[in-house]
Amino acid sequence: MTSPVTFTLEATDGMARRGRIDTHRGAINTPAFMPVGTAGTVKGLYPEQVRETGADILLGNTYHLMLRPGAERVARLGGLHEFMDWARPILTDSGGFQVMSLAKLRKLTEKGVTFRSHIDGSAHELTPERSIEIQKLLDSDIIMQLDECIALPAEHREIERAMELSLRWAQRSKDAFAEAPGRALFGIVQGGDDPELRARSAAGLQDIGFHGYSIGGLAVGEPQEVMFRVLSDLTPLMPQDRPRYLMGVGKPDDILGGIERGVDMFDCVHPTRAGRHGHAYTRFGVINLKNARHKDDHRPLDEASPNPNCRRFSRAYLHHLVKAEEMLGAMLLSQINLHYYQELTAGARTAISAGRMADFAVETRNGWARGDLPPLA
Amino acid sequence: MTSPVTFTLEATDGMARRGRIDTHRGAINTPAFMPVGTAGTVKGLYPEQVRETGADILLGNTYHLMLRPGAERVARLGGLHEFMDWARPILTDSGGFQVMSLAKLRKLTEKGVTFRSHIDGSAHELTPERSIEIQKLLDSDIIMQLDECIALPAEHREIERAMELSLRWAQRSKDAFAEAPGRALFGIVQGGDDPELRARSAAGLQDIGFHGYSIGGLAVGEPQEVMFRVLSDLTPLMPQDRPRYLMGVGKPDDILGGIERGVDMFDCVHPTRAGRHGHAYTRFGVINLKNARHKDDHRPLDEASPNPNCRRFSRAYLHHLVKAEEMLGAMLLSQINLHYYQELTAGARTAISAGRMADFAVETRNGWARGDLPPLA
Ligand SMILES: [Zn+2]
Ligand SMILES: [Zn+2]
Repeated sequence: MTSPVTFTLEATDGMARRGRIDTHRGAINTPAFMPVGTAGTVKGLYPEQVRETGADILLGNTYHLMLRPGAERVARLGGLHEFMDWARPILTDSGGFQVMSLAKLRKLTEKGVTFRSHIDGSAHELTPERSIEIQKLLDSDIIMQLDECIALPAEHREIERAMELSLRWAQRSKDAFAEAPGRALFGIVQGGDDPELRARSAAGLQDIGFHGYSIGGLAVGEPQEVMFRVLSDLTPLMPQDRPRYLMGVGKPDDILGGIERGVDMFDCVHPTRAGRHGHAYTRFGVINLKNARHKDDHRPLDEASPNPNCRRFSRAYLHHLVKAEEMLGAMLLSQINLHYYQELTAGARTAISAGRMADFAVETRNGWARGDLPPLA
Repeated sequence: MTSPVTFTLEATDGMARRGRIDTHRGAINTPAFMPVGTAGTVKGLYPEQVRETGADILLGNTYHLMLRPGAERVARLGGLHEFMDWARPILTDSGGFQVMSLAKLRKLTEKGVTFRSHIDGSAHELTPERSIEIQKLLDSDIIMQLDECIALPAEHREIERAMELSLRWAQRSKDAFAEAPGRALFGIVQGGDDPELRARSAAGLQDIGFHGYSIGGLAVGEPQEVMFRVLSDLTPLMPQDRPRYLMGVGKPDDILGGIERGVDMFDCVHPTRAGRHGHAYTRFGVINLKNARHKDDHRPLDEASPNPNCRRFSRAYLHHLVKAEEMLGAMLLSQINLHYYQELTAGARTAISAGRMADFAVETRNGWARGDLPPLA
């Protein structure tokens, strides 16, 4: 029941990697996209629907869960898997990123960060040690160290300061993690858009030693080309035998580019958030169902989709649901987007094994570039 | 494919009736509760989930659908069943009730009612003939005549005027309905809380002749005892061989009382609306999941429920979802409430066939009266 978390690299194609993370709660096929279950639920989907999209693992947000319902409460209720009826692996973030983006009256010191809840103003402290403790209380399978993530662009000195603080916090996180059978601990590479700082961060983390390595501090305001350049420079410096997780990324083309640059794991709220806003991701690219062109369109979103929800309803119906702000519109489009993200990562896995990742990427991008079906005459 | 809609009375027990309405889209077992799919969706549920709760039929709102997406559009898209992917029977209301409660600048004349949309202010007219036309465009299986429904209490003269207008509109609706293979047309009994007016309305409608008879003008502000008295006086005057539909009712105890008084069909938005507000209907009565008593309660809503969603999640989780205003909370509680309503009508059907409706009613009311489980110590 508490066998160690292991990573097996199954195939490579260029920099792209196919692998498998084994946990006592099941395997995670990589490249993997992890749906985000912010507050103990992936918004708009039943847990079994999340699994049916193809997800092997989901992400829980420490910041949200520590404030409500509270980590100790989740532990008393049997842990996050039991709480939300998701039996497969869960990765939790450290809470640090959302403290810096959501909480009020933040104060960061060497020790950690104090802040007030955005929900009720209550005072909290998050340290590397407390973050690990919370993630264990949640019964997380893959735990993140606390780090400091800063927005880009930023001063070199500021990027370096945050990277070095994150390294010291990495060591404290490792010490606090100690022996935790069945769980994995990931360090987080920081260093902004500076190759030398990224290299120092990656080396420092490997000296400490982690089960996997996350790439933080990207998708924080920089152009996609900057993110891709950082990834291209960084992943060759990361160990081959450990999973690599690009945090908080992204749109489908970010994920495809990340896979091409050797990333194994991704997470983002974008597919469900976009779904709630009436946007559908498909092999035709993104389709805005608010657009009046769909009003009388009897065609399904994508008649060739493997996802039944893409085939069974007309665009006119989806348009209607979105315009009428019906829950089912948000539910369907969230499911459709998460399914498409899983199709994308599953397609990449197959392509990597077949040694045709480059072709897969071209075909996928061509589909997006062609765009949606022409409107009905 | 277009066999006529027929009603078979299968058993009676006191005034309570068990029956079956056969349509070319499937059978409706009565007493039946019809979930309301206001704008082409039962809020918060996939259509297959609605069916899985046990619903044989759902209700569509003519007022909402004529305004958005529009009846002609729904017809071009293949009708309401195709539009929303619900293959079983649909009953539509006439639109009149919601014109009077939602629309702006209403003007009622002998001819019909003119009004402006509450969505975009556009001008519309609804006459008995246009209401029938719209309901046919929607491809409704069970069509309602246009009537005038007034709130109670009201002056005798006003109730009589509206009842007589409704009778004249009943004749015009019958004429407009003409031959419509596969569809049924229901007349609507009006007459407020006045037994003599109700009797005149029922007799007048039977002179015209309908496939079924609705009871309108109840659940419009009067005490439950008034509604029950009207039903007890009225249903003996209604034909035995036609279904009886109590419109817009109600909470579980309204439905139980209606069944005991010979009603066959019910509809109400209450189960889904209550679900969105954090209320769960169970054999323990109604449970408010916003209440802090559930915060640490690991117990399911009802461990003996036939509904998996009542057994799989803790009260603490449901409380959390409701407090965090997560979509899944509204989705689950809407499903749970609709399922309970179907358990109630299914239980009544079984009891009527077994000649133990009185016992079933006592047992059910005792459960509600005992209330929820005691809080955890
Ligand atoms: Zn993101
Ligand atoms: Zn109602």
